[in-house]
Parts: sequence; C-alpha cells; structure tokens
Amino acid sequence: MARSYQPGAMRVLGIDPGTLAMGYGLVDEIGDRLCMIDCGVLQVSGHTPIPERLHLLYKGLMEVLRSSQPDEMAVEEPFVSRNVRSALAIGRAQAIAMLAAASLHIPVYTYPPARVKHVVANYGGSDKQQIQHMVSMQLGLASPPPETDAADALAIALCHLREKHLAKVIATGD
Amino acid sequence: MARSYQPGAMRVLGIDPGTLAMGYGLVDEIGDRLCMIDCGVLQVSGHTPIPERLHLLYKGLMEVLRSSQPDEMAVEEPFVSRNVRSALAIGRAQAIAMLAAASLHIPVYTYPPARVKHVVANYGGSDKQQIQHMVSMQLGLASPPPETDAADALAIALCHLREKHLAKVIATGD
Repeated sequence: MARSYQPGAMRVLGIDPGTLAMGYGLVDEIGDRLCMIDCGVLQVSGHTPIPERLHLLYKGLMEVLRSSQPDEMAVEEPFVSRNVRSALAIGRAQAIAMLAAASLHIPVYTYPPARVKHVVANYGGSDKQQIQHMVSMQLGLASPPPETDAADALAIALCHLREKHLAKVIATGD
Repeated sequence: MARSYQPGAMRVLGIDPGTLAMGYGLVDEIGDRLCMIDCGVLQVSGHTPIPERLHLLYKGLMEVLRSSQPDEMAVEEPFVSRNVRSALAIGRAQAIAMLAAASLHIPVYTYPPARVKHVVANYGGSDKQQIQHMVSMQLGLASPPPETDAADALAIALCHLREKHLAKVIATGD
C-alpha cells in the first residue's frame, strides 16, 4: 500500500463514516484508468466506550493515511438521518476522519449518499449490493469487495474522482 | 490554571460542544466546596473549512487539558436536535472533545441539556440567562461568566459533580 511515484496520478481515500465500522477505500486515477489500491473496514467493539472507540478509529485512520499518502479525502455526508442518535454518530465518525486529514494537510470533500449512488450506479436509490457490483465493475475487480462499508468507501472515492473530472470538463469546455 | 495538589479534590472539565464555539468550564470540588478554576470559549471562524476548524478546536482543547489536568470530562449530548445539520455539527464537536480526553486517558461522561438545566437550575426548560445566573450563584462568582457557552460548560461540570454526589449518597445510604 506504500505509495510509489506515479507521474500525474491522483490518489483519493474514500471514507464511509461510522463509529463501529469505518469503511475506507483508496483509488488511484492514472490518466484515464481508475485503480483500486486498497480497501477495508476499521472495526471497533460496541462494548468499548465511545471516546475510546473514536481514539482507536483515529489511530487506525492515521496509520492508513500515513502509509498510503492520499492527495485528497472524500467523506460521505447525509442530508437526512434516521434519528438524532444516528446523526450524532455519523458526525462523530466524520470528525475523526476530517481531523486526521486536516492534521496531515489533506483536503477533504463531502458528498451526500444519494449523490454517490447516482454518480456510481446511475440511480440515487441503489442498494448495497448494486453499489458493490458497480464499484467492482468500474474498478475491474475480479470479485466485489466482501464488506459493504469498504465498497461504499470505494464508491465515495469514485464519486469524488468523477465529480472532479466533470468539473474539469466544464471548466475547459473539452 | 496549572494544577496544584489539593488532597481529595476532584477537577471536572465541562464541555458545551460546538464547531464554531466550544465552551469549556473547569470546576474543582474540594470537600463540600465547588470552585471555578477557569472557563472560556474556543472560537473559530465560520469561513474556515470544517476539517481545519476541528483541527484548531482539537489543538485548543488539548492545550486546556494538558495545562489543567482534569480528572474527568462531562460533555453535553442532546436527545433531540433542530435538524440533521445541527446534530452532525454537535456530533463532530463532541468527537473532538471525546478524542482529546481519550488520548489523555480522561474518563468522559455525557448529559442531555434538559438534565443539566434541571440539576443546575431546578427546571429543564431554563433559558441561557437563568443558567448564567444559577452557575454564578452556585460557584460564588462576583458576576456571571459573560459568554453563555462558557456558562453552559460550567453548568455541565456542576451537573456531573452533583450527579456523582447523588450516586454516592444512594450507594452509601448516607
């Protein structure tokens, strides 16, 4: 996973924020190619007190960031939530990811889940399995990432790279 | 603010979590006396990107924790929220406080705002001015803390100390 020099490559770390499971997915864009570098889920026990959970996730994420050295981070940010408890938990997990990125001067971008699904699967209401399938296809993987949180994180990274590409096309008129 | 040795004293840092203004209030319990050690508000500009804001708040809070060395931290935790945006922001601010505490092995306790108001002002629906007044009275301050976020943070610290006291009374039957 350690970064080797790729001229013109852009490396994005996608984050699916959760305080029990934090999905991450690293994607390189090299010219027109999109390449998965790594993906996984940082997991902590629900029996661990929340402050300690956040500390473990922060340490885990700093390790991922230091070893993979992404250029940018993309984090999921919902507009709606099941309830306050769930929104607080997502906010906490987001803060851990954002703080880790900011401490290493890595720019952070946020995307709502419906936007990620729309960009990656052409449909904002796609389910977890469809996302796994589409991510796998677009990255040319032999099989989908087994963990849905990791697949979601890869989808967020893909969404960010596609949005950047679109913005560039609009700006240059190509 | 640096901690001097007080036999039997308990120092609590109360936190009113916000990503623009993070209130903090330090209270010592020495025997039957409650004594304000410090209070204030860590403020960041709304023009600063959120990840950088969180980083500034984290650094500020670590400075407060290192210099004051509290035994415990008490953080406000709402059950209800105006909207998802507001709940995400509180979750983020909470995470910063919890992470700072966990990294220094300081135990964290959370209290809903209505509980804090009820314990400190005998009424769950108290407004900001009432809280400022009650905090000031209970800590024997010459004048209320001018910043409401700092007064709220002191109220959270007071609530935690009173709840601990109550739990002790119930446990020992005194």
